[in-house]
Amino acid sequence: MEEEVLQHHISQQFNTELAEIRTQVLNMGGLVEEQLKNAIIALTDADEKLARKVYANDFKINALEVRIDEECTRILARRQPAASDLRLVMAVVKMITDLERIGDQAERIARMSIQINNSVQNKSHTINIAHLGERVQKMLHDALDAFVRMDVELALKVLHEDRSVDAEYEGISRQLMTYMMEDARTIPTVLNLLWSARALERIGDHANNMCEHLIYFVKGKDIRHISLEQVEQEARES
Amino acid sequence: MEEEVLQHHISQQFNTELAEIRTQVLNMGGLVEEQLKNAIIALTDADEKLARKVYANDFKINALEVRIDEECTRILARRQPAASDLRLVMAVVKMITDLERIGDQAERIARMSIQINNSVQNKSHTINIAHLGERVQKMLHDALDAFVRMDVELALKVLHEDRSVDAEYEGISRQLMTYMMEDARTIPTVLNLLWSARALERIGDHANNMCEHLIYFVKGKDIRHISLEQVEQEARES
Repeated sequence: MEEEVLQHHISQQFNTELAEIRTQVLNMGGLVEEQLKNAIIALTDADEKLARKVYANDFKINALEVRIDEECTRILARRQPAASDLRLVMAVVKMITDLERIGDQAERIARMSIQINNSVQNKSHTINIAHLGERVQKMLHDALDAFVRMDVELALKVLHEDRSVDAEYEGISRQLMTYMMEDARTIPTVLNLLWSARALERIGDHANNMCEHLIYFVKGKDIRHISLEQVEQEARES
Repeated sequence: MEEEVLQHHISQQFNTELAEIRTQVLNMGGLVEEQLKNAIIALTDADEKLARKVYANDFKINALEVRIDEECTRILARRQPAASDLRLVMAVVKMITDLERIGDQAERIARMSIQINNSVQNKSHTINIAHLGERVQKMLHDALDAFVRMDVELALKVLHEDRSVDAEYEGISRQLMTYMMEDARTIPTVLNLLWSARALERIGDHANNMCEHLIYFVKGKDIRHISLEQVEQEARES
């Protein structure tokens, strides 16, 4: 009887620890979302002060990554989780790597925006990037939301969106190239815009990865590196 | 007595499993090295056939990543490793993510090289990229070597090299920009060279990450996101 109570107590505490990790991932996600939002505003509104804030806050994301990683390793060592608990911990370990890299890309965009400010700002050049930025922000938000609600359908939606975002990035990239060819003096500025668009595209990829890890956790199936059609079939099988 | 024999048997088998995982990481590493080497040759020698080979082989790296990941999860579930065994498994899980992304970047360089072939090839433009490529190949090789020999000093050397490679990339990037400004017709080709140089710089970052994970495994200290001086101090403490 006492044994049972103890078991129950341990598993209760374990559940609390797992819930705590999920909360920490969401905190980290919220911070990354804010960094991304601010980086995009810094770029499109030429807000250097905001850019420097993004630059200054990146360390917080890095610190959270290390802390959550340590917490996951501690849980693996002490709790020796199995089945879906183990998959959750492994999915978290992978997801926070993607979150940290999204933070890096946001920082990169912020740095780029400062360089653009120092040259001629061209509103018409940033309008498409702003649109791409909105879509990528939505992808990240949906990826985190899918994680909160363990929502495979929403995760699949993000996977779809990523294909479409990649195509939009290709279009922007081609358009920016024509600007450079028309007027060589714009090259340094437009290159920074090109890098920023690329960073956004990469952020979309990371949101995509997060959703793949989530589907692995919920379904127990690794769906990386297979076609989207196959992913949908696998993920929707019960 | 029988119990003891069984324990011994289990731990023997566990050691075999850990050794097997290390071998698989090295196989994956060897494949990634080959892909990177071929991608760089494809770029500098305008070898389209080789580029297509790189493109066609990427799936092998992806398959290895998934397989090793599954093997690690299986070990965590069945063996419930602690201390350094657990750290090894976690380091492997992280390292193969970096290896897979190096493979992606190699594939990207190969794709870029085909586009460059279709335009005017300019030998003088690729010579600096070839040099950057050599250094990055060496970094990857050293990172894998450090993993084989559990060599923290070699891992620290790679961390140093990454700083210097980043600086070299910045120089190449600036130089390529001047080419574009001098002759707008070169923009599409030079942009592909610029993306390739960037991909190499990113590969250096991933080799750097691999070494950080290795140091974490050997020393039990997470040295990500701290200054290089601090890393050296921490890593050299016994």
